[in-house]
Amino acid sequence: MSVYVVGHKSPDTDSVTAAIAYAELMKAKGEDYIACVQGELNPETAVVLEKFGAATPELMTDAAGKQVALVDHSDLAQAPDNLGDGEVVAVVDHHKIGDVTTNNPIFFCAMPVGCTGTVLKILYDMEGVAVSSQVAGLMLAAILSDTVNFKSPTCTDADKKAVEELKTIAGVDDTDGLFMDMLKAKSAVDGVPPMDLLDRDYKDFDMNGKKVGVGQLELATLDQVASMRDDLYKAMEEKKADGRHTVLLMLTDVVREGTDLMVVSDDPALIEGAFNAKLDGNSMWIDGMMSRKKQTVPNLQNAFGC
Amino acid sequence: MSVYVVGHKSPDTDSVTAAIAYAELMKAKGEDYIACVQGELNPETAVVLEKFGAATPELMTDAAGKQVALVDHSDLAQAPDNLGDGEVVAVVDHHKIGDVTTNNPIFFCAMPVGCTGTVLKILYDMEGVAVSSQVAGLMLAAILSDTVNFKSPTCTDADKKAVEELKTIAGVDDTDGLFMDMLKAKSAVDGVPPMDLLDRDYKDFDMNGKKVGVGQLELATLDQVASMRDDLYKAMEEKKADGRHTVLLMLTDVVREGTDLMVVSDDPALIEGAFNAKLDGNSMWIDGMMSRKKQTVPNLQNAFGC
Repeated sequence: MSVYVVGHKSPDTDSVTAAIAYAELMKAKGEDYIACVQGELNPETAVVLEKFGAATPELMTDAAGKQVALVDHSDLAQAPDNLGDGEVVAVVDHHKIGDVTTNNPIFFCAMPVGCTGTVLKILYDMEGVAVSSQVAGLMLAAILSDTVNFKSPTCTDADKKAVEELKTIAGVDDTDGLFMDMLKAKSAVDGVPPMDLLDRDYKDFDMNGKKVGVGQLELATLDQVASMRDDLYKAMEEKKADGRHTVLLMLTDVVREGTDLMVVSDDPALIEGAFNAKLDGNSMWIDGMMSRKKQTVPNLQNAFGC
Repeated sequence: MSVYVVGHKSPDTDSVTAAIAYAELMKAKGEDYIACVQGELNPETAVVLEKFGAATPELMTDAAGKQVALVDHSDLAQAPDNLGDGEVVAVVDHHKIGDVTTNNPIFFCAMPVGCTGTVLKILYDMEGVAVSSQVAGLMLAAILSDTVNFKSPTCTDADKKAVEELKTIAGVDDTDGLFMDMLKAKSAVDGVPPMDLLDRDYKDFDMNGKKVGVGQLELATLDQVASMRDDLYKAMEEKKADGRHTVLLMLTDVVREGTDLMVVSDDPALIEGAFNAKLDGNSMWIDGMMSRKKQTVPNLQNAFGC
């Protein structure tokens, strides 16, 4: 029986490349693993797969009747639909520990590092399996993306060590150049419908019984979205109307190293309190905020009493 | 701030030695980790610690205000009290994935092997930390205990490989002899109060909202408990009266390789169905049943619709 390896609902570069890398690792061990995605590739990931000549993983959104390995998440809300009618056989992640449980012992490996790619590099080494040049390139790109070229507070020494080893295997000399190519692809917003931008890197969270959505756009400059703020706000209101307490959009300025946080909420004061900041119109600038996982979500969890 | 490493509520050899072994691993990495237990040592564990000259870990049952590393479990029901008022910073386990969640990324490593000791041996190797002779002896004893000297269906090639390496480091030639010494200590029942026997290796589980307790006594022969069955049954009834739907006691015959399952339940037919067996009086013989984790609990979860 094949095992379907899949990242979270809103695929990003780590989520997609981790599915490929873990499937390749397990195939090298003689197992029948198939890399999958839960949705369309974002522009950054498309550039990465093309650069390293990797095929787009097949679409898989329903886990019923399937054996599934989860990468880059361990939350039911981010997993394929009907996971309870399937079987989780492995988890490889670098986020907080989510609410996935199992009825049998499985392999579950999460590490507090900047990227699932880094965890996977450690697992390849642990298993004594050689990383192919292609997979090394994919993992390298994922680490640069997730750590924002080492600038994110989530970046650890283990991520830097993995990059050093992977760039050699992949034959990539200029990792800054690779990062800028990804950033250009990622931050291209012209002509993209506002809801697509909101969904580009979007996740829902259960906050003490309330549904809270957080999207993130990493930009070279906030000017890129200056003319579309009203349209983005309307898209956020539309998403909130679908049963959510709060919808946030992180407009992250990678160069200034901070985030302009757009807020649509039943309780704006709660969100202000979560980040110790004041809304100026529909958004508030939060200096140094780069990471949804390490900064935005923990602050929200504290504010919502999780 | 110290991190308290602790196994599950009803300490067994794996739970206690894993706390010691993980604390030593982290100390070797320069971290301040303290091995703890949640209760009194069982007779087997006492023999093991004495044999390898290890001190009894300190008692720790309340996690409030503490940083805690969990070994040999990832269920809130088995963790120290008030875990929500403390912080889980690591999990090392070999059971099904439980309901512990975190607000931040942590190290979480579970593997589908027979013993936490085996996972820890792999982690020592991964970190490049040498296992001391004493810790090797403790981990070795834990693997022999948890795998019932390799007879349990939970035993994997990884457990056998770990034993081969650990016996050399610990200087133990006769692992069968070590196992029999442990079994003699573990299965000594004469003069022990029935409730203490029931509690010797006992765990509560949440089964679809119902509290179900499962104890296990590993015996060289069922004759050892022949004269105390009525008293054990009374102890089970007493425990059930404290808000439980079902209390089971596995009388596991290590030589015959099966279990006489004693049952006190609001719904005995459900328990019979779970194991496809019929009660003969208060118990039913289930051939081949050796493992609570891999056999008893999954069957119960299916029957209770978890």
